[in-house]
Amino acid sequence: MNANLQVDAQGRLRHLLTTEGLPAAMIRRILDTAEQFVSVNEREVKKLPLLRGKSIFNVFFENSTRTRTTFEIAAKRLSADVINLNIGASSTAKGESLLDTVYNLQAMDADMFVVRHAQSGAPHLIAKHVKPGVAVINAGDGRHAHPTQGLLDVYTIRHYKKDFSGLSVAIVGDVLHSRVARSQIHALKTLGVPDLRVIGPRTLIPADVERLGVTVHHDLATGLKGCDVVIALRLQSERMNGALLPSAGEFFKAYGLTAERLALAKPDAIVMHPGPMNRGVEIDSHVADGRQSVILPQVTFGIAVRMAVMSILAGSAAGALTDGPAA
Amino acid sequence: MNANLQVDAQGRLRHLLTTEGLPAAMIRRILDTAEQFVSVNEREVKKLPLLRGKSIFNVFFENSTRTRTTFEIAAKRLSADVINLNIGASSTAKGESLLDTVYNLQAMDADMFVVRHAQSGAPHLIAKHVKPGVAVINAGDGRHAHPTQGLLDVYTIRHYKKDFSGLSVAIVGDVLHSRVARSQIHALKTLGVPDLRVIGPRTLIPADVERLGVTVHHDLATGLKGCDVVIALRLQSERMNGALLPSAGEFFKAYGLTAERLALAKPDAIVMHPGPMNRGVEIDSHVADGRQSVILPQVTFGIAVRMAVMSILAGSAAGALTDGPAA
Amino acid sequence: MNANLQVDAQGRLRHLLTTEGLPAAMIRRILDTAEQFVSVNEREVKKLPLLRGKSIFNVFFENSTRTRTTFEIAAKRLSADVINLNIGASSTAKGESLLDTVYNLQAMDADMFVVRHAQSGAPHLIAKHVKPGVAVINAGDGRHAHPTQGLLDVYTIRHYKKDFSGLSVAIVGDVLHSRVARSQIHALKTLGVPDLRVIGPRTLIPADVERLGVTVHHDLATGLKGCDVVIALRLQSERMNGALLPSAGEFFKAYGLTAERLALAKPDAIVMHPGPMNRGVEIDSHVADGRQSVILPQVTFGIAVRMAVMSILAGSAAGALTDGPAA
Repeated sequence: MNANLQVDAQGRLRHLLTTEGLPAAMIRRILDTAEQFVSVNEREVKKLPLLRGKSIFNVFFENSTRTRTTFEIAAKRLSADVINLNIGASSTAKGESLLDTVYNLQAMDADMFVVRHAQSGAPHLIAKHVKPGVAVINAGDGRHAHPTQGLLDVYTIRHYKKDFSGLSVAIVGDVLHSRVARSQIHALKTLGVPDLRVIGPRTLIPADVERLGVTVHHDLATGLKGCDVVIALRLQSERMNGALLPSAGEFFKAYGLTAERLALAKPDAIVMHPGPMNRGVEIDSHVADGRQSVILPQVTFGIAVRMAVMSILAGSAAGALTDGPAA
Repeated sequence: MNANLQVDAQGRLRHLLTTEGLPAAMIRRILDTAEQFVSVNEREVKKLPLLRGKSIFNVFFENSTRTRTTFEIAAKRLSADVINLNIGASSTAKGESLLDTVYNLQAMDADMFVVRHAQSGAPHLIAKHVKPGVAVINAGDGRHAHPTQGLLDVYTIRHYKKDFSGLSVAIVGDVLHSRVARSQIHALKTLGVPDLRVIGPRTLIPADVERLGVTVHHDLATGLKGCDVVIALRLQSERMNGALLPSAGEFFKAYGLTAERLALAKPDAIVMHPGPMNRGVEIDSHVADGRQSVILPQVTFGIAVRMAVMSILAGSAAGALTDGPAA
Repeated sequence: MNANLQVDAQGRLRHLLTTEGLPAAMIRRILDTAEQFVSVNEREVKKLPLLRGKSIFNVFFENSTRTRTTFEIAAKRLSADVINLNIGASSTAKGESLLDTVYNLQAMDADMFVVRHAQSGAPHLIAKHVKPGVAVINAGDGRHAHPTQGLLDVYTIRHYKKDFSGLSVAIVGDVLHSRVARSQIHALKTLGVPDLRVIGPRTLIPADVERLGVTVHHDLATGLKGCDVVIALRLQSERMNGALLPSAGEFFKAYGLTAERLALAKPDAIVMHPGPMNRGVEIDSHVADGRQSVILPQVTFGIAVRMAVMSILAGSAAGALTDGPAA
C-alpha cells in the first residue's frame, strides 16, 4: 500500500487507509486531537459544529452494525450529515461495480467515505479514484487493515501507560486473520514500542510476521511474562474458510486469557480486546470484567479517535475545540 | 418488576419500563408535558432544542419499523442524535451477549436506550446495569409491557373524556399475548378508572387477570354495554406459537367490533386500537374509520407522549416549552 | 393520471407524481430553483435551513438504496428530519394496507412522503388521500413514472444544450419497462423538443408509444443519426417477468452504445444514462467514461432537482437562497 496516498507532500492527512507508514507525528496529532474530543463527549451537550454541512457516507459492503455505529455517532457529534449505505444487498446486486458505486456517491457532492469491505485493498482502490478534497477512511478491509481500531488501541495504551518507550506489548490469538493486529503492530512500531510479541498457535500466526519487527511465541505463559499490555484478539471464525482450526474449547485451553495466566504479566498490565468478545474463548469473564480490563474505555476512546480522524481529514480540527458547542 | 428502578427516592423518573407501580403524579406529569408537545407538533417548525447533543440509541432486538419510527421522530423533534440499531442480525449473531452489547453502546457515551426485545424483562435487566444518568425506555418486551403505548392510550382517553373517575373501559380481544393490555390496565387503575373490563375467549384471557382489578367477560355484547371507551387489541398471531387459537374468521364472528355491537356502548364511546389493525378480524372498517374512532389521534398523541417521556428522563422538560423553537 | 392533483388552481405544486401534464412554467421553475441548489452543493457548508422542523418520510415499498440516498441527502441539506422506512419487511408483512400505513405516518405529523412502490399508481393513490398540506413525491412506481429522474434529465439537457427548440433527442433501449423513459418523454414534449425518438427492438417498445409524439426506430444507426442527446436506458431485467427478451449479449450487439455508433450522432452530442449502468450491455465503457458522457453530472444535478422539488412543495423556495447557510 502506498503511504503517500494518505499523507500529502505538505504533511496533510488526505485519507486514512492503514497505519502502515503513517508518520509518528501524524499519529500523535490524531491522538492529541482525540484527547480533546474525549472531554467533549463527557459534556452535557456532546456536539460540535466542525463538520456542519459536510456529507459523510458510511459505505458498508460488509455488514458491521457495531463499527458503522461508532462512525455514525462520531460524525453526528461533529454535526455532519451522515448517510448509511448497506451496499451488499443493493447496487452491487444490480451489477454495478465498486467504482461506479463510488463515482455515483461522489457525484452527490460527498465529502468523506467510510468504507468497509470484505476484500483487502478496496478502500485503497477507492482512495486512488476519488476527487481531490474527498477523503476515504478504511473501516476494515478483509485481512488487511482497520486503522481507526489500531489508533484507538494506541490511544488507550498511551492513556494508561503514558509513554511507549520501554513497553512490552503482547498480542494474543488469531493474528493470521486479524486486520486489527496488523494495524496495531504498524502503529506501535512507529511509536517506538521496543518489545512487541505475538502469541498464538502456528496455524494462526502468519509465517512472515517477524518481518514486522515482532517476536513470535507459541506458548502463552512465556509470551505474557512481564508484559505491560495484553491484547486478546477476536477469533475470526467467520473469516476462516475451511482452514485447519482449533475448536473454541481447545483454543481457550491453550490461549484463553485467564486470571492465572494474566498474573504472569506485570501487576499493572492492562488487558484489551477489540470486541465483540467471545467470553470463554479468547478471554475469561473474570479478566474481561476485571480490574485490569480497559476494554470498555477502548470503545469510548474509539469515538473520540474517529472524531479526530474525521475532523483532521476535513481540515477543521485546528483551534476548533476552543469554540465551545455549536450555537 | 421493581418500580423503584423507574422512579428514584426524589420522585424523579430514571427509566420507563412499565406502567405498573408508576405513581399517578408521574403519569399526570407525562400527560401534561405531552399536551404541550402536541401543540409543538402542530407548528410550522416542529423542532425544539431540548435534547440537543444527546445520543439516543434505538436498540431493537425485535424488528418493529412502526414503533422505531415513532421514537425516532420524537427524538429528532427534540434535536437529539438518534442511532438505529437492528441488533437481531449483527452483534448477537456474533455471539455477543445482551449486556455486552449494552455496555459497548454505553461506552460510546449514550444518554438513552430505547429497547425492544422479544423477551419479557430484557429492558429491566438493562436498566439495572446501566450507569447513573443513562435512561432506558421499554419499547415493548415480550408479553410483559409497552409503557409508552399504555401512556398514549391514557392520554387519548383523558383528551376525549377529560376525567377518569366514573369511566367504563372495555379492552377486547387477545389479552393473553398483549403487553399493550397490561400496560393499559396498570395505568388506568392507577388513574382511578372504576370499571375496567376485559373481553375475549377463555383461550386469550389470562387465568389470573382479575387480580389486576378488572372484570372478565367472555360475551362481547355484555362486556360492551354502557362503555365509555372500547379498546380493540391486535390479534398477536406472531406470538401464539402452537396455542389453541380461533381462526381470524371465528374471532371476528365472536369478538370483531362492528357498528352493531358498538351501539351497545354509550353513544359517545370512543374506539381505540394500538395498531396495526387487522381489518375484518378485530375491527370492522366501518368502525375503524367511523365517527367514534380515535385510532389515528392515538398515533399523533403517541409522538407527543414519547417526546414527553424522553425530555422528562433527560431532565430537560421543565419550562423548556416557553423557549420557542430552536434558534 | 389527474394532473390537477399535482398543481392546484393557483398554480402551486401540491405533489410531484408524474411529469405528464406538468405545466412548462412549473418545470422551468423547478429547473431554475435547482440551478441555485447546484451552487449550494458546491459550497464548503452544504446546508440551508429551508426545511428545518419538517418531517420527511422516505417510504420505500420497493428497495432502492440509490434513489433513497438521493432523496435523503437532498432533505438533509435542506435541514429536514428524515425518516427512512423500508416497508416491504414490516407493516405490510403484518397485514396493514397501503393506506393504513400512510394514515399512520401522516398522524405522526408528516410533512412529506417520498414514495417508491412496485405498483404503478401507488403514489397517486396516496396523494389522493393525504391531508391538505402534506405532499407526495413519486420516487418511482412500477412502469409508470419517475418524475424527479425525468426532471433531472431535462435539467441536464438544458445545462448542456441551453435551449430545447431545435433539439433531436434519442432514447435507446428498454422503453417498455421504463418509467424513466415515460417521464423523460412527457417533460421533453412539454418543453418543446421537436424531434424525439425511441430506439429499440419491437419487444421493448410499447405498441402505442407514437401517441406520445415520438418517432420509433428499430435500427440504432438510423435512430442516432444527427442527434444532440442520446439517452441509454437501463435494461430492466428485474421487471421482465417471462417476456420474450434479448440476452445481454444480443442486446449489446444490436443496441449497445459504442463509440463507433455514437459517431453517427452530432459531434457534440451528450450521452446520458439513469444508472445503474450495465456496462457492456446498454453502453460500452469507452462511451460511459468518455468525453461526451454526462452521466455523473446527471447524479449531481439530481440532488439539486430533488432539493428544488422538496422546497417548492414545502412552499419555502422563494427568496430562500439569498439567506445564506443556516445559522
